[in-house]
Amino acid sequence: MSSEDSSAFVAPARLEAFSDGVLAIVITLLVLEIKVPDLENPLSGQEAWKALLVLAPKFIGYLLSFFFVAVFWVNHHRFFRLIQHVDDGLLWLNVVLLLALSFIPFPTGMIGEYPRNSASLVLFATILLLGGVAFNLMWRHALRRDLFQSGVHRDVAKKAIAKGLWGPCLYGLSAALAFVFPLGCWILLVTIPFIYFFKRS
Amino acid sequence: MSSEDSSAFVAPARLEAFSDGVLAIVITLLVLEIKVPDLENPLSGQEAWKALLVLAPKFIGYLLSFFFVAVFWVNHHRFFRLIQHVDDGLLWLNVVLLLALSFIPFPTGMIGEYPRNSASLVLFATILLLGGVAFNLMWRHALRRDLFQSGVHRDVAKKAIAKGLWGPCLYGLSAALAFVFPLGCWILLVTIPFIYFFKRS
Amino acid sequence: MSSEDSSAFVAPARLEAFSDGVLAIVITLLVLEIKVPDLENPLSGQEAWKALLVLAPKFIGYLLSFFFVAVFWVNHHRFFRLIQHVDDGLLWLNVVLLLALSFIPFPTGMIGEYPRNSASLVLFATILLLGGVAFNLMWRHALRRDLFQSGVHRDVAKKAIAKGLWGPCLYGLSAALAFVFPLGCWILLVTIPFIYFFKRS
Amino acid sequence: MSSEDSSAFVAPARLEAFSDGVLAIVITLLVLEIKVPDLENPLSGQEAWKALLVLAPKFIGYLLSFFFVAVFWVNHHRFFRLIQHVDDGLLWLNVVLLLALSFIPFPTGMIGEYPRNSASLVLFATILLLGGVAFNLMWRHALRRDLFQSGVHRDVAKKAIAKGLWGPCLYGLSAALAFVFPLGCWILLVTIPFIYFFKRS
Repeated sequence: MSSEDSSAFVAPARLEAFSDGVLAIVITLLVLEIKVPDLENPLSGQEAWKALLVLAPKFIGYLLSFFFVAVFWVNHHRFFRLIQHVDDGLLWLNVVLLLALSFIPFPTGMIGEYPRNSASLVLFATILLLGGVAFNLMWRHALRRDLFQSGVHRDVAKKAIAKGLWGPCLYGLSAALAFVFPLGCWILLVTIPFIYFFKRS
Repeated sequence: MSSEDSSAFVAPARLEAFSDGVLAIVITLLVLEIKVPDLENPLSGQEAWKALLVLAPKFIGYLLSFFFVAVFWVNHHRFFRLIQHVDDGLLWLNVVLLLALSFIPFPTGMIGEYPRNSASLVLFATILLLGGVAFNLMWRHALRRDLFQSGVHRDVAKKAIAKGLWGPCLYGLSAALAFVFPLGCWILLVTIPFIYFFKRS
Repeated sequence: MSSEDSSAFVAPARLEAFSDGVLAIVITLLVLEIKVPDLENPLSGQEAWKALLVLAPKFIGYLLSFFFVAVFWVNHHRFFRLIQHVDDGLLWLNVVLLLALSFIPFPTGMIGEYPRNSASLVLFATILLLGGVAFNLMWRHALRRDLFQSGVHRDVAKKAIAKGLWGPCLYGLSAALAFVFPLGCWILLVTIPFIYFFKRS
Repeated sequence: MSSEDSSAFVAPARLEAFSDGVLAIVITLLVLEIKVPDLENPLSGQEAWKALLVLAPKFIGYLLSFFFVAVFWVNHHRFFRLIQHVDDGLLWLNVVLLLALSFIPFPTGMIGEYPRNSASLVLFATILLLGGVAFNLMWRHALRRDLFQSGVHRDVAKKAIAKGLWGPCLYGLSAALAFVFPLGCWILLVTIPFIYFFKRS
């Protein structure tokens, strides 16, 4: 297949629908990483609350991943609203993005199980970094190859690319922090949603 | 991103489709909480029936969660039929709703495993309460920000908001009951579907 | 909500899309019931083939459930192509159908784990029976309430209802056979796809 | 049902949407085959990295399956863009394709757990072979029965059928290699994506 004739055959709407499906599944599978705890006394409410408290890192990891995937979904949708054509480059960058995002349940399980282990946190932040970089490359690729709809200003894309560096920077910083100071990495990861909402309003 | 220019970029149809996807997955993942029981004699039908009987709380929890998610789906769909615009507030309230609903397999697993434990039931009812409150806030937000289609009367929304308090009230009552009288909480939870169908007809 | 004004708010297309989503998930989750076997010698191809042979009932159960869900999907799609309106009755009959079908991974796991246990097979066949009955009731309900599109002849529906009894009869017969003669039940279940394809051509 | 009147009732768009759903779920379920490893010292980053290294075959298997399913999705989508009618033959060939692809998490788990076992690799490659053959038969069937849209040249289909033999040949070769030389099978499987991208550009 030469890339010209084949590129016309992937419709933006279907690629977006497929990606939406993957993200909807990832966000819903996250809960499977949290197992019902074992209780010695199945009737003891107190023991159950304590067992749930022990699961706190899993719940926080769940909330974080849920938030990050939701943000990726919103941004992905906003990007595809502007896209006219999908060429092979954009298609495969999108596959890399989906690869990173559909892998998230594993590092989420890692940070939930080993919250104070640097390796868990490095892995978690690196996967987010990979997703963020892939998404930024999608914007750059679309701009360079002129894949946007006719009404879309190049400045919109340039602004989005610049803003879109925030995510990878924060994720990269999180990964770096994890090596030397795991708790600091957690604090940064938990702060990102607040930064996100603060910047919007 | 300022909230004006970005809000125009999430299409109601896509947010509904994404939410539909999440709900379809949640409702289907529920069955994974019910594990095939261990039998000493794999040929004994009698032992198998007894083992299935022991799983009764899991089956009832499955039915309850299936029903609640189905009702949320129906109401969510009816809500989005009326929506013209999705602003950032509605988007993130919808994310909170999805967060609550996609978490349901965990408390469903808890009440199936520890049906007489108050903590399980409090958690289960609280998650439903969170979902119900988020959905009610979606209606209120849409009314306040005038996000409905032009043909929609404000009275329709006001009536829906008033009726929509029934759910959170019943879920909150269930959570409160669970603390003092777990069996009463079960009875109330099982009664809610009957109340629901009785009110309709 | 009175049933008149609310019934207009569920679009056939969205109910079909939601049901499609549930069926796509069920058919894909089936594989999770088959666990990678434990091998003493991880390098021995021979031991691995033997272990896979022991899993044969799981593979057959997988194929059967895959086939049954696929047939339900095809028939469900053909039904909804004819539907103009969805009233509350059709909506909730459809929920019962989805309840039966999304439960299938559990009895599939049972017959895979305990293939010679009558209880497993009774459960499996009964769930299919429930699905078949719910689907037949959907046709009857749509005929009685006149929910079909204007161009659809009543004879088409009547014929479909009559033909649609084949499934529940075969599933009911399978359940009955399972009690007295589990192997006969397996033979019947495996024969059903062949009956199905023979009848078509 | 006679095959004429029934065949008109499956819309290509819905069959494609259903297949997309199945593929999106398969590609996202793959991660569930990778379990969080057990660590003796939950704080040791070094032990965690070693444990992750041991999981390397699982990660490579994950990447391979992700890639293969993504390629099937792209090709499936391109095929359905050309289809005007879905007859029963195409419908059931598509079901066989989905059967093969939705089974992939199991052999992916096998090669991840037993990477040097010939049986794992034979199974993995055979499932891909089955998928590739089913897809090739779909093209042939559509050509023979004239199911393409009016603007589609028969040469396009003939070219696609010829090119579409590459996949099954490579998968069949992988399966054969697995019997005699498991490492060679891995090398071939890992090379296929590079062959794929090299051929395109």
